[in-house]
Amino acid sequence: MCQEAKNIKQSILNPVKEALPLNKIEIFPLTGLPVIKEGDDLALLICQAAEKQETSIQNGDVIVVTHVVVSRAEGNVVNLETVTPSEFAKTIAKTTRKDPRLVEVILRESKSIVRMSNGKLITETKQGLICANSGIDQSNVPGNTVVALLPEDADQSARTIRKNVLKSSGKDVAVIVSDTHGRPLRHGEINIALGTSGFEPLRDRRGEKDLFGYTIRIKRTAIADELASAAELVIGQTNEAIPVAIIRGYPYPKSETANATKMMRPPEEDLFI
Amino acid sequence: MCQEAKNIKQSILNPVKEALPLNKIEIFPLTGLPVIKEGDDLALLICQAAEKQETSIQNGDVIVVTHVVVSRAEGNVVNLETVTPSEFAKTIAKTTRKDPRLVEVILRESKSIVRMSNGKLITETKQGLICANSGIDQSNVPGNTVVALLPEDADQSARTIRKNVLKSSGKDVAVIVSDTHGRPLRHGEINIALGTSGFEPLRDRRGEKDLFGYTIRIKRTAIADELASAAELVIGQTNEAIPVAIIRGYPYPKSETANATKMMRPPEEDLFI
Repeated sequence: MCQEAKNIKQSILNPVKEALPLNKIEIFPLTGLPVIKEGDDLALLICQAAEKQETSIQNGDVIVVTHVVVSRAEGNVVNLETVTPSEFAKTIAKTTRKDPRLVEVILRESKSIVRMSNGKLITETKQGLICANSGIDQSNVPGNTVVALLPEDADQSARTIRKNVLKSSGKDVAVIVSDTHGRPLRHGEINIALGTSGFEPLRDRRGEKDLFGYTIRIKRTAIADELASAAELVIGQTNEAIPVAIIRGYPYPKSETANATKMMRPPEEDLFI
Repeated sequence: MCQEAKNIKQSILNPVKEALPLNKIEIFPLTGLPVIKEGDDLALLICQAAEKQETSIQNGDVIVVTHVVVSRAEGNVVNLETVTPSEFAKTIAKTTRKDPRLVEVILRESKSIVRMSNGKLITETKQGLICANSGIDQSNVPGNTVVALLPEDADQSARTIRKNVLKSSGKDVAVIVSDTHGRPLRHGEINIALGTSGFEPLRDRRGEKDLFGYTIRIKRTAIADELASAAELVIGQTNEAIPVAIIRGYPYPKSETANATKMMRPPEEDLFI
């Protein structure tokens, strides 16, 4: 266990009245990245940009990368000019007032339509994520007619970035591929983890005892989503200048095998809907 | 506009290749708070604890307080020994395998039952929040039979803390009363803002242009929820030692009137469910 984790454990176990050593978290925006294009080694560019701004990657950092730059580096974009919409896409385009070619791409990326109304199209993507427009992004992509799809396998994308960060910098980090996400029952969007590597995205607190000896029974914290949301606070979402954040000082539970896919709860298991 | 906001705006407008002045965010856990009891001046205790750990409250800080300590300071707790369950509560207690007195309190705090199954009880609280068990917490409350309710009006709680922080320290801050929250379609819980004061909880990005000139059409970021989630990263949820976090360096959009209640989207307006 690293020293920071020990300190935090200490502070949890001892509810003292004295000030304890502070285990603060820092979140750095990563400035100075070039415009990302297909084939770029994102990990290398991230390491170089971090060094240039004097926040060189350290062991234990969490690197949060917005999915649009991952999709662009992976060439996972579509030029709508190359798309011929189906008859069904044209029909839906009329009721949702969208570009029929965009609707065609949304349909190609989805395995079902969950809901449709008021110009909104909620789908279940091929990856199993339920979200608006199959997660397709029109912003932060060069060219008026180019859209970015979700990464084919965001966990794999995260694993690749993590492996290449190790290669470029020698540092062992956690990686999150993040996405902006609308939610049932709440206005406004938050950021969630589409893909993760190097840590356990759900922290299981069941069985822990609280200050008063009560045993926690149902708490599993979605720390990957919380980290993605924390990163958004420094990520300039409307501009590619800051598509990456570095979170330093968070003692994440390490894992070589865990991934973010298991954070998706299928509708049939869901109590809310 | 404060200097930090100017810097961030600068970094958004100029996607330069050079490193820019860094606008990092820091999140401090607040250690050294006493066990909170009814009638305590939370704001004063927070200011004192922050000073003791040499992170004295500054103008522009976001103070995130978990709702359980707010409810305890406000005396918004119930001893189950004083509760007589109704016949209906007894029936539900059997199917959900819960303490009938706890079910009685859950029912008293709710205006409707949204879903019931597998020992889980999803309700719409009197405040309009849809969540498990009307948001009632059995952990972090002294006494085996004492439970904490949600604050009656978490926005008002946040306003009171903000006003009293100004009185105690002379500093103008933003305040969030946070809660741990399960979500449809995702495993694991995140933290959200039940109540806010001093800032706009939804950052409206519609109309902004991205790096490539594309005008953002639908983005409204729930920054209050993202800040609450970021704070959870340092808050020891299973232990009262750290029920408060200070977020420093986030240039929130100030508001004297905005509140978190408007972040709730009523089920009848919801496309997902």
